Amino acid sequence: MAASSSSSSSYKPVLTVESINPHVPNVEYAVRGELSNRANDYANILAEGKGKERGLAFPSVVSANIGNPQQQPFLAQKPLTFWRQVAALTEYPALLDAKLPDDVFPRDVKDRARHILDDVGSVGAYSHSKGAASIRKHVAEFIQERDGHPSDPEMIYLTAGASAGVQLLLSILIAGPQVGVMIPIPQYPLYSAALAFYGAQPVRYFLDAHHDWAIDVDAMARQVDESRQKGIDVRACCVINPGNPTGSCLSRKNIEDILKMAHDKRLVVMADEVYQANIYQPDTLPFISFKKVLRDFEKDEATKNIASEVELVSFHSISKGVSGECGRRGGYFELTNISSDVEAQVYKMASVNLCPSLQGQIGVDLLVRPPRQGEPSYELWKHETQSIHETLEARSKKMAGKFNELEGIQCNEAQGALYLFPEITLPQKAIEAAQKEKRQPDLFYCLKMLDATGICVVPGSGFGKMPDLEQRKVFLRTTVLAKETDEFVERFGTFHKKFLEEYA
Amino acid sequence: MAASSSSSSSYKPVLTVESINPHVPNVEYAVRGELSNRANDYANILAEGKGKERGLAFPSVVSANIGNPQQQPFLAQKPLTFWRQVAALTEYPALLDAKLPDDVFPRDVKDRARHILDDVGSVGAYSHSKGAASIRKHVAEFIQERDGHPSDPEMIYLTAGASAGVQLLLSILIAGPQVGVMIPIPQYPLYSAALAFYGAQPVRYFLDAHHDWAIDVDAMARQVDESRQKGIDVRACCVINPGNPTGSCLSRKNIEDILKMAHDKRLVVMADEVYQANIYQPDTLPFISFKKVLRDFEKDEATKNIASEVELVSFHSISKGVSGECGRRGGYFELTNISSDVEAQVYKMASVNLCPSLQGQIGVDLLVRPPRQGEPSYELWKHETQSIHETLEARSKKMAGKFNELEGIQCNEAQGALYLFPEITLPQKAIEAAQKEKRQPDLFYCLKMLDATGICVVPGSGFGKMPDLEQRKVFLRTTVLAKETDEFVERFGTFHKKFLEEYA
Repeated sequence: MAASSSSSSSYKPVLTVESINPHVPNVEYAVRGELSNRANDYANILAEGKGKERGLAFPSVVSANIGNPQQQPFLAQKPLTFWRQVAALTEYPALLDAKLPDDVFPRDVKDRARHILDDVGSVGAYSHSKGAASIRKHVAEFIQERDGHPSDPEMIYLTAGASAGVQLLLSILIAGPQVGVMIPIPQYPLYSAALAFYGAQPVRYFLDAHHDWAIDVDAMARQVDESRQKGIDVRACCVINPGNPTGSCLSRKNIEDILKMAHDKRLVVMADEVYQANIYQPDTLPFISFKKVLRDFEKDEATKNIASEVELVSFHSISKGVSGECGRRGGYFELTNISSDVEAQVYKMASVNLCPSLQGQIGVDLLVRPPRQGEPSYELWKHETQSIHETLEARSKKMAGKFNELEGIQCNEAQGALYLFPEITLPQKAIEAAQKEKRQPDLFYCLKMLDATGICVVPGSGFGKMPDLEQRKVFLRTTVLAKETDEFVERFGTFHKKFLEEYA
Repeated sequence: MAASSSSSSSYKPVLTVESINPHVPNVEYAVRGELSNRANDYANILAEGKGKERGLAFPSVVSANIGNPQQQPFLAQKPLTFWRQVAALTEYPALLDAKLPDDVFPRDVKDRARHILDDVGSVGAYSHSKGAASIRKHVAEFIQERDGHPSDPEMIYLTAGASAGVQLLLSILIAGPQVGVMIPIPQYPLYSAALAFYGAQPVRYFLDAHHDWAIDVDAMARQVDESRQKGIDVRACCVINPGNPTGSCLSRKNIEDILKMAHDKRLVVMADEVYQANIYQPDTLPFISFKKVLRDFEKDEATKNIASEVELVSFHSISKGVSGECGRRGGYFELTNISSDVEAQVYKMASVNLCPSLQGQIGVDLLVRPPRQGEPSYELWKHETQSIHETLEARSKKMAGKFNELEGIQCNEAQGALYLFPEITLPQKAIEAAQKEKRQPDLFYCLKMLDATGICVVPGSGFGKMPDLEQRKVFLRTTVLAKETDEFVERFGTFHKKFLEEYA
């Protein structure tokens, strides 16, 4: 063995920001950036009881930056009892046979746990790489019931949350730096982060801030043409419905137009539908899946070919909805009209990752097969889910109302999802102060809010730069999850008024 | 909206094997390939009770291809009671306050569950992207106790199994197609799969099949030089200890030499230590971590700089050891001597993935903080873990012994890990028969074995092509997990004898 050089105070590390994958430093992920790091620091200071000593002006940090409903102590959405009972029994099956009072685990909970264990054996075993067969079958049944069209369990892949699925598909679809993928602006920054990481070009389409974040499909089509003329191989279009961060819902007509455009322009459609159960105007804007609209095209001779040709990947998750089970990391995607050769490649790549966590998979089973009327757990499940839904809806309405009472703030009521995305008109002096600090004005505003109130939100610029916006107009995204809504809007409003005075 | 073209029977799908990421078709992952797909088909046929009808010559499929100890029904390692009790309580905390017989959950189980819940709040909430703070602290304490050197919780990242961590680090480290990463041959194919996917060059170093799979560190150093002369930017060296698939363990001297070589050649060391608890010759070949050996260099002035300069990433997992909790997807990595700028990039990328599953994280807590002597759960935990360890050791010895009794098979006793990797001398006629089928001889043999016995193993070529091997010499990897060891070796031996006769 060669002697090691012992005089290397000049040793140069192999890994530096300059030497690593050059895509990595380009990745931005504002949901957990400078702002949330500072919020973490404040939370740690408060946890140590040193808030006063360190001059913090608030008793608690409110993490309104991430859709994390069960986070303690300020969101603290209660988990669904049925879910957790089944999870506990699958973790420790000895409880199925233990002598417990009858009311601890209802009969249908035990049946469900046994049914799951019959298939997976143990939650400590790897499952099939696509996920447990029985759970994929239940997902297909759920989709079929929802859409009125068949769904094939072999085209269902269970994933560690929707994010893992989106990243897997993008990593397969992106063949090089010339590839373009359409993303909405504003968008959940997973998309821009993944495109930066895989080195593809974001092809941005803009949602109309002043018309309920409407999509202009003709403009999208022109955007494809223009990008292709520049040599960009635009090959996919990501749509988030209901929208994140916008909270807007697409109409059937919107979805039809997008699918027709995708067919016309040969684009894979990636439909992020993780908020499909968070719908606040069901009569006028119910959730309609891309898969349903696509398959409905079968009925009309003129559009029949679209139904069988547009390549669609649909994503769903257990992290949102009324379950809010983010920490289990569960979700699925469904492949529609993807060639079997490509599907085989998707399967191989899923295999390298072994399988998603079994409790994530079980969460998917519980999501797609809730208790049915007449079963012992039904009434409680119904009460819990309704009450969570009503709470989210009420908070969302109240918060939007209170925001709109504040000077310089305009906020749409959410049609869906878990967020509000108010527009704020900042005083000119605030813009100048931000420029002095070399910060985006919205980040400047949000940092000031965090410092003053402990409320952590996400600056609108974290979701992509919107065009044609006056410099003074900025956005921020806040979840509607804070338990103490009154206190939240109170802290927010007090800060906002003082901010306007300070920079008047 | 532009009218959709309605006459497109000639629609060309966007995604074809030719159009997707060209790295994807290059990825190979033999642990779950043709052989395991065929085994799945057989298992499905048997599950439908159609084995006889379809002419299957065996009553059951034995999945000896994947280290998946809890897989039902033929491995079925019993989960550790302490683990599952804590998991059940964290899933359904109402059980903490329910009136249950005293013996259902021991006091220390309840204490642990409360302690975990105090930190994470709910297993349904996202944690910090690096993992829950209290669990990372416990990991650091475990490492400190194991190695006798400090460990910083901020340099610990909890992951969804070791695979996810390895892929994250490689994806950051690989800056382009000129980058080379050293991998052992034979190797667990995650490494070659990840290098193919990220488009880097595998720089292979060979373990000596006929000398306990020894590593020749001088040859590694020459290999680095030669590769660099060819323009390959060799920047990391992956080491698997205890070895997969080889079952061999490195001595302290081996590890010292590798670290010195890494320093000399400026290589990041990636130490895959997931089998650190699966050690069968503890007196002569105990597990010693790369981190310990690296930090021990501090004691000697001549090697002091190595201790503070070699960049090391160490991986561990809850999937192996005696817990075998593969389905939870839990693990961690520790960064040593990685610059803080690069660490910030690792953190950002971990953030995009939100967090690993909470039950995976809790598994890590249970791995690194088992019950201590005197605590109510200690005796049962000790009994269960010892008995699993002894069973694995006994099976491994028995299987190796039985293999060695067979004509043309030579099998080392495992020093560690969960596998045997016997060398088989095939008859010339079998080689010719394989060539006719355009299959590797070892795959040919393994498929024949699956067809005849239902036993699924992995052909040695799936772990990388070994040099200087007679064409007739092949390897296969089998786990030592099969519950019915006697039946396993009986089925295997009968097949092997018949195979030799058939191709005599």
